Amino acid sequence: MTANTIEKTPVTLLGLGAMGTALARTWLAAGHPLTVWNRTPARAEALAPEGAKAVDSAAEAVAASTLVIVCLLDDASVEATLDGVDLTGKDLVNLTTTTPAQARTRAVWAEERGARYLDGGIMAVPPMVGVPEAGGYVFYSGSAELFEQHRETLAVPVGTRYVGADAGHAALHDVALLSGMYGMFAGVHHAFALIRKEDIDPVEFAPLLADWLAAMAQGVHLTADQLRSGDYTKGVVSNLGMQVAGTPTFLATAEQQGVSTELLRPYFDLMARRLAEAGGDEDLTGVVDLLVR
Amino acid sequence: MTANTIEKTPVTLLGLGAMGTALARTWLAAGHPLTVWNRTPARAEALAPEGAKAVDSAAEAVAASTLVIVCLLDDASVEATLDGVDLTGKDLVNLTTTTPAQARTRAVWAEERGARYLDGGIMAVPPMVGVPEAGGYVFYSGSAELFEQHRETLAVPVGTRYVGADAGHAALHDVALLSGMYGMFAGVHHAFALIRKEDIDPVEFAPLLADWLAAMAQGVHLTADQLRSGDYTKGVVSNLGMQVAGTPTFLATAEQQGVSTELLRPYFDLMARRLAEAGGDEDLTGVVDLLVR
Repeated sequence: MTANTIEKTPVTLLGLGAMGTALARTWLAAGHPLTVWNRTPARAEALAPEGAKAVDSAAEAVAASTLVIVCLLDDASVEATLDGVDLTGKDLVNLTTTTPAQARTRAVWAEERGARYLDGGIMAVPPMVGVPEAGGYVFYSGSAELFEQHRETLAVPVGTRYVGADAGHAALHDVALLSGMYGMFAGVHHAFALIRKEDIDPVEFAPLLADWLAAMAQGVHLTADQLRSGDYTKGVVSNLGMQVAGTPTFLATAEQQGVSTELLRPYFDLMARRLAEAGGDEDLTGVVDLLVR
Repeated sequence: MTANTIEKTPVTLLGLGAMGTALARTWLAAGHPLTVWNRTPARAEALAPEGAKAVDSAAEAVAASTLVIVCLLDDASVEATLDGVDLTGKDLVNLTTTTPAQARTRAVWAEERGARYLDGGIMAVPPMVGVPEAGGYVFYSGSAELFEQHRETLAVPVGTRYVGADAGHAALHDVALLSGMYGMFAGVHHAFALIRKEDIDPVEFAPLLADWLAAMAQGVHLTADQLRSGDYTKGVVSNLGMQVAGTPTFLATAEQQGVSTELLRPYFDLMARRLAEAGGDEDLTGVVDLLVR
């Protein structure tokens, strides 16, 4: 019975969508006293048999614990849910998906109400919550004191990565990584489209593509070195001039395979623009400068 | 002296750009008799001290060995270089970068001249040639007999992967993987652009992005399963409806960070088009169908 006698930090959780419910279950399983509230009460009541205390109002839920986790639909829901609720002395951890600017505004708003504020960006889908080997984690930014004090409790559902005092940086890391992923998915879908009409089994093609992308993803480190130093010619193995010279082959192949170039062409256009401005000796990194206004 | 007494297959190599020169050195180092020709003779003569036989014409080079490797600028250079050269009984391996259609045409052209034909797509840059641990390889397609007979010789510079009798399939695999990579690079550059004006060190950000992309690249296997089965709702963890609902956050974040959305928006537009056509329960895989005409 020793494990049960160790006092676990009480947690309040507002919002029981798929993600909130998955989070709730991990804290319950780890023995944390958990108070839950959801706009439609059925989801809160469903967790009662597992030990959660389901309450009728957000105010009541917030009053129950110092540590308050918010996992709602969007920033407007956070504002509406906590409007008029006493946050004095609370540690508010906002896992709701927002933009960096919304997170920064919310941090000021929370601090004005007497709460410490930590923003989170969840790099996991609900099935990865409570499954450490799935590798999911949450980016946190904002109050370092809040994070340090509750680090262990926050780490119960998924891993944690603190990325600084600027409350917007967790959301920015989240959006940046997911944006990178959508770019990769665009490339993946273009690649599968190229073989769509051929006698090539996508399942046999998949490991070639997956392994290639995983290997090429390590090029991110060189890009970062170049961006930090400002020298985009550092360590180049295939320069911009050579790569732009190759783009007609990619566009012609798409044309031959009956595949739209709408996903590839914008990047090739930026490569060509950078070549015209900076010459061919650089890496592809100069595209970053063209994207920033 | 035992190693030197084993007879190694003689190789003829046409084209000594950066890649051709790197290939040449690995065959020389492995003890293969090597005949080389290059349009500008200086590059061929430069390899003579290492044991290469530099000759004055492509015809003379082709006559020297049964196995003839071609690594020229483009398909037009291959045609021009081998115009009128006797290819009877030759095993022609074309590593020149081409489209799949060019490779298929070249295969017919070679067979009409009495040669066996194998096309190659090189998944490596010159510094990776002769460095097995660098993981580079060449896709081969076309004559399976040629490939089997010379497999060991072809594997000297970089690994080999035979992808079928259709001579166009090596180039298609090559272009598909590289297209996927450019999509990923577009995402990577968008991600770095998002943090460009922030107090975030790109070198600290890089491992988060690289590891995330490497992990997400494994999603390619699920995409392939869905494409093979035709069931795009199979195994979905975050469905199209939810993902389209999230896109405004990505576009708003780019806007707030002063980053152009020109690389992300085309993919989000396709996601929205697919949602309108097929509903929200699918994975993102339906985008592939929209790309194929």
